[in-house]
Parts: sequence; structure tokens; C-alpha cells
Amino acid sequence: MEIKSILAAIDDLAHFSQGDRGVTRLAFSDEDQAARQYIERLMGEAGLTVRTDPFGNLIGRLEGTDPKAPAVVTGSHLDTVPEGGKYDGVLGVIGGLAAVKRLSHEGPLTHPLEVVAFAAEESSRFSHATMGSKAMTGTANLIAWAKARDEQGISLAEALARRGIDLGRVKEAVRSRDEIKAFLELHIEQGPVLERTGNKIGIVEAIAAPTRLKIIVEGTAGHSGATPMEARQDALVSAAMIILAVQEIALERHHQGTVGTVGVLRVHPNAMNVIPGRVEMGVDIRGVNHESIIETIQDLKDEVSSIADSQETPVAIEVTASETPVALDEELIEICEAVCRELDVPYKFMNSGAGHDAMNMAAVVPSAMILIPCRDGLSHNPEEYVDAADIMQGIDVLTEVLRRLAQ
Amino acid sequence: MEIKSILAAIDDLAHFSQGDRGVTRLAFSDEDQAARQYIERLMGEAGLTVRTDPFGNLIGRLEGTDPKAPAVVTGSHLDTVPEGGKYDGVLGVIGGLAAVKRLSHEGPLTHPLEVVAFAAEESSRFSHATMGSKAMTGTANLIAWAKARDEQGISLAEALARRGIDLGRVKEAVRSRDEIKAFLELHIEQGPVLERTGNKIGIVEAIAAPTRLKIIVEGTAGHSGATPMEARQDALVSAAMIILAVQEIALERHHQGTVGTVGVLRVHPNAMNVIPGRVEMGVDIRGVNHESIIETIQDLKDEVSSIADSQETPVAIEVTASETPVALDEELIEICEAVCRELDVPYKFMNSGAGHDAMNMAAVVPSAMILIPCRDGLSHNPEEYVDAADIMQGIDVLTEVLRRLAQ
Repeated sequence: MEIKSILAAIDDLAHFSQGDRGVTRLAFSDEDQAARQYIERLMGEAGLTVRTDPFGNLIGRLEGTDPKAPAVVTGSHLDTVPEGGKYDGVLGVIGGLAAVKRLSHEGPLTHPLEVVAFAAEESSRFSHATMGSKAMTGTANLIAWAKARDEQGISLAEALARRGIDLGRVKEAVRSRDEIKAFLELHIEQGPVLERTGNKIGIVEAIAAPTRLKIIVEGTAGHSGATPMEARQDALVSAAMIILAVQEIALERHHQGTVGTVGVLRVHPNAMNVIPGRVEMGVDIRGVNHESIIETIQDLKDEVSSIADSQETPVAIEVTASETPVALDEELIEICEAVCRELDVPYKFMNSGAGHDAMNMAAVVPSAMILIPCRDGLSHNPEEYVDAADIMQGIDVLTEVLRRLAQ
Repeated sequence: MEIKSILAAIDDLAHFSQGDRGVTRLAFSDEDQAARQYIERLMGEAGLTVRTDPFGNLIGRLEGTDPKAPAVVTGSHLDTVPEGGKYDGVLGVIGGLAAVKRLSHEGPLTHPLEVVAFAAEESSRFSHATMGSKAMTGTANLIAWAKARDEQGISLAEALARRGIDLGRVKEAVRSRDEIKAFLELHIEQGPVLERTGNKIGIVEAIAAPTRLKIIVEGTAGHSGATPMEARQDALVSAAMIILAVQEIALERHHQGTVGTVGVLRVHPNAMNVIPGRVEMGVDIRGVNHESIIETIQDLKDEVSSIADSQETPVAIEVTASETPVALDEELIEICEAVCRELDVPYKFMNSGAGHDAMNMAAVVPSAMILIPCRDGLSHNPEEYVDAADIMQGIDVLTEVLRRLAQ
């Protein structure tokens, strides 16, 4: 695939979107299905044998000369957040396909090569992230998945059934360790570090893990005109204090790479003339330093409890996800570094603040990630943009690493 | 109407609700329509002649002995906020009907008596408050009404058309000053003052007017894991600062009776793994001291501007409503006081923080308001509760005031 057809494929995929502000392609939606069919066609045209596993992960495979050798796997995801960008995930699928296509033209390698488009990487629809790779590595929390529903009240099982997938058979998606030699994921950085330091490749050493909290503040709804200021228990005022506490506590630990975000907030009844009686918040805490995350959460719980007391608004905190940071494979990291040196590409060792499918794959097989810069560090944003030359350089590095592993 | 049938009617009306958490009966909804039909039937049974004016205000009339004498009018509204209580508005309609019924049993008075159920008093659906009384007094902002839409995107004109009402003919709802001698509204306090001071009747001297601001904070959406804390423009963090600024500025002026509330807040894209890129807020500022309101808004604008600068998140402020506090009629206030003394009911002169239809009626005809206590000052809340004895005492006072005005 030449640069022109790679960029064209990225643009084509961006059209599979609900709404026209950025790309909205939620997991298992019609748009997601259309994007997968598009990739399935490209994989077929590239001479790959295509299959869909029992959770809906799309796998294109190119056989090697040794029929018993484990596969070298690359890939990423096709689903997006609401109003996201066109490179997040897509780059690793299209880029992986371009790399495998290039290698296939040079004649067969010893190991099979596979390109995977993981299903449901983003947590936007069902509040569970990297579901496809969890299904593939047998790390899914099936009890929680059985309860998962989207904002329209559609259960995960229903959404899967619409695509002909049976949630009860998700365990059949688990692959044996023996089938896979290594996993490589090419991705945009989704942060500003590479751009600011003038590097073109980020070699990921560890992936931050998200801990997610659901916080519910109970105030007292009341008339916004007739209730004196000093007689209020305004749930949104307490929520505002919690938002600033998350910000402050995370800022105190930013040197440890820990970040905190209130991304979700819903006010009840959300009416102009009613003092908010209840606020629900979703908080996302991440980092690569497990102790720092634990301390951050403890500090936040203490602060929330003190806000609840002083404002007389009871607050409930539920930890809805708690994952451990993942270190990637040292040997693969060395190969990535050697390739960057050989190709004379400026590179930087770094951590990934964003979670990725590589996180789950790393629990089972040697895994690595290659990041490329995105403009102004923007991602999960319609303005997400990646330079064409940076895309090609990323694919060059990926191609070389795959070659070394598969030969 | 005896206390039993009054309480039964209040309970019956509470069943016309969308959802079962409190009462949700938005203006011009099917539930609202059903409630109006219920009241229309009660009015008919009480011997009143019933008509609906060109905006949908329901008017029940009992003729007096002098066919040329102007009417003495009482009433309130039937629509509610989302998840509101069962007394707000309803009390003034049912109570007004009970008073008129009682007077009718005693034989005809000189002046006609009218009970009005005003349409669309709450701003919850179309962001405009006390629409029915504005239509009746010719104080509607028809340009703004023509643009009004609810959250489902249904325009006011469409919602009215579904009830057989033509927004283009709303001017025909305006009544001449000569037709009405006085307007009296019985209402629950919606605040804790009467309960705390042990009074049973509040005689309103002035009604606070709401100024409403729409504030839009523009941040930068970004990945919640990969964007360092110090590289963020988080629209929700700025919004939190604004919420606390509203609280603080209003607290500084609470001795002037000015209150401030952020009742509405929407986050975009509102996803767990995305830093909020945009937040829309609705702010409600009220008071009876016009200067205090103006100063509050100026202070808030200054503070918002400084938050916008320091956080690098541009903020736009739009004033969507700005009304002037209204003083009620001194002569009517004196009559209310005389009746309370005569009936030996503990009363208190006070201001109403909540806006009411009496506010618009007062611009055209002599108007007064009688408030009764509600438990813990709660209103716009499913827990709204009014003691039966307080209801009866309120109706006793209303009946006497109406008698003096109509005889």
C-alpha cells in the first residue's frame, strides 16, 4: 500500500460515522459493522485469509513457510469514542495491513502474519474498554459484561446478537499462547510528548491502567428562587468541589505520571429552576505507577468524604474498574529500538497514558507498542490529525519489526 | 369542597404524571392535558361556566349580580417541573375552586368570580416561565416564543398545535384591564421561612424576578489517559469553578435576598475517557432587590472572565431572561392582613423568591399572593408536602379576601 491508498483508506473509514462532528463509530453499531466490512474487503484484496472470532474480532492471516510456527500479530481497533478522530485505532489496523502487504510482496517469511481489528476497544458504549482483546486473552469479566448496557438501555448481549454473536460463547474466542509469537500495536500517541520533544517514534515501556469511579452525590432538590442560599444542599455545588479535588490531587502527582479526569457528569433533574438534587459523575484515574494510583484514590476518597460532610450532601463512591499498569516485553522493546536506530528515526522510550489492546495481549504473549505523534497531542477530538510522513515512518518501523520477528 | 375532597383532588392530579418519581407534568404534555380536563370537569360540577382562552388558560366563571362589574380572579397553574411535587400550582387552582364553591353556596355576590388554571407556568419545558399569564396580560415576548423548543426539539408552536392552539393567535388571549378587578394567588411558600417562624400565612409584598444566563465553556477534548494534567483545557474544571463562583457571589448577597443557582449543566462528549471539550450551563439569579441582582450578575461576569483567562477555556455568556422584581398591590395586602387578623391566623409579610403568575397579573391589575408553609421548605421535589390544616387555613383566608373584594 502506498501512502495515497493508506490515507484514502483512513478517509474512507471516517465516513462510517454517526453524525458529522468528528467520527462517532460506537462498538457494534451499524457504522462499526460497515467499517469492519470495509476492512474485511481490504484484507481479502491483500491476499489474507479472513475470519471473525466468536467475539467479533476480525483476523486476517498470511501463512508463513512453517505451518507449525506461531503467528506474529499486529493490529488495533476500529470503534471510536463519540465525536472522536479518524486515526485513533484505525492507524494500527490500516498500518498493520500495509506492513503485512509490503512483507507479502517480498516473499514468504517463516511465521504466519496476522492483522487484527479488535472489537469494542473504547469504553464509550458499554463502559468496558478493550473488550475484544480481553475476549481473545480470556481476561474478560463475564459477570460484569452480562450486566453491561448502553445509554439506550441495549444490553451487550443484545448488541452482539444483532451482529450474530452469542455472548454465551465468548470464551471460544480465547486463543492459546502457543498460537502467537508476539503482538505489536501501532498507534497515535494521543498526547503531546513526541511532538514537544521532536521525536517521531515512541517505544512504549508500560501502559497506564485506568481505575474508574462512579460517584453519586445526593443533595436536596428545591426551588431555585425560594430556597435561601444558606438552607441548601446543592448536589452540583458538591460535585464542583469534587471535580476541583480530582484536578488538584492529580496535579500533585503528575510527576509520577498519574492523571485524573471527570469525563462524565449528569445532573438531576437538570432544570433551570430546580436546585440539583442528585449528580452522577464518572472519574477516570490512570498512571503507570501503581502506588501513585492507589494513593491518588485514597486522597480522593478522603477529600470526597470531607466535602460530603461539610456540604451535608451524602456521597457514594463505587470503583467500577481497577486495572494494574502493564510493562511491555523487554526483548521486543530492544528490537523496536534497534529498528529505529537502523532506520535513523528519532525515538523516545515512554509510557502510554491511554489503555490499549496491547495491555491485555501482554498478559499472554510478548507485546510491544509503537506510537507516532499527533498534532497538538489531540485525540478523542474531531481535530485529531496525524502527518502523512509520520504515518509512513511508523509503518516503516512496524514493517521492520514484524519482519525480524517473522523471519 | 370539604377537606376530604380537596385532598382527594390533589392526589388525583398527582397521578397525571410521566414517571413515578414525584410528579412530572410538563406544559402541554398529555399528562398536563389530562389534568386540565380533570379540573374542567370539577369546575363544571361546581356550577362554573368554563372556557379555554386562545393560549390554553382554563377559566371557570361564576356570575355576580352586577353583569357589568369586573371579575375577581384567583388561580394558579397545573404544570410541574420534572420530578416535582403535588402542591406547587395545584393548591392555588384547587384552593381557588374550593373558595369560589364555598362563596357560591352562600348566594351571589356583586362581582363575578373566576378561577384560572394558567398554562405553562414552569419554564422546564420551553425555558420560558409563566407563559399563560404573560399571554393573558399581553407581556409575552412573541419573537422569543416563536423560537422556543423543548429538549426533544418540538417547537412551542407544534406543542400548542397538538392541543388545537394557534401560536399566531396568542394576542387574542389578552384581557382588558376593565374586565378584572383584582387577582389573588394562593400558593405554597416553596421555602422554609413560614415553617421556621411559626407563621401560617405569608402575605407577599414583592416577587423576585429571575435573570437567566446561558454559559458555554469551550475547552479542548482530549484523551483522559494520554493528556498530561498541565497540558489540559478541561471545560468541566472551568465549569466547576464557575459553579462555586455563583455560590460564593450569591452567598455574599444573601442578606439582600438574592440567590444564584446552576440548575442545568451538560457535558460534551460526556464520555469516561475523554476530557470534557464543552460544557453548557444554565444559571438562575433571583431577588427582589434589582440593584443587588445587577451587581451579582456583574460580579459573576467578572469572575467568569477571569476563570476563562486563567484556564485558557473561552467562555460565552448570554442573558436569556431578565425580569424586574414586582411589588404587589398595597390595598390588597392590607385586606389580606385584615383577614388574617380577623381569623386570628399568624401571618408574616414576606417576599417571594419564586416567580409566579401573580407577577404578570400585577402589571395590569391589582394583585396579591397568599403563601402557606410547606414541610422543610421543600418544593420542586418529590418530597414536597403540605399539612392539611394549613391548606384549609389558606383557603379560609383566600375565601374571606375574595368575599370582601366581590361583595
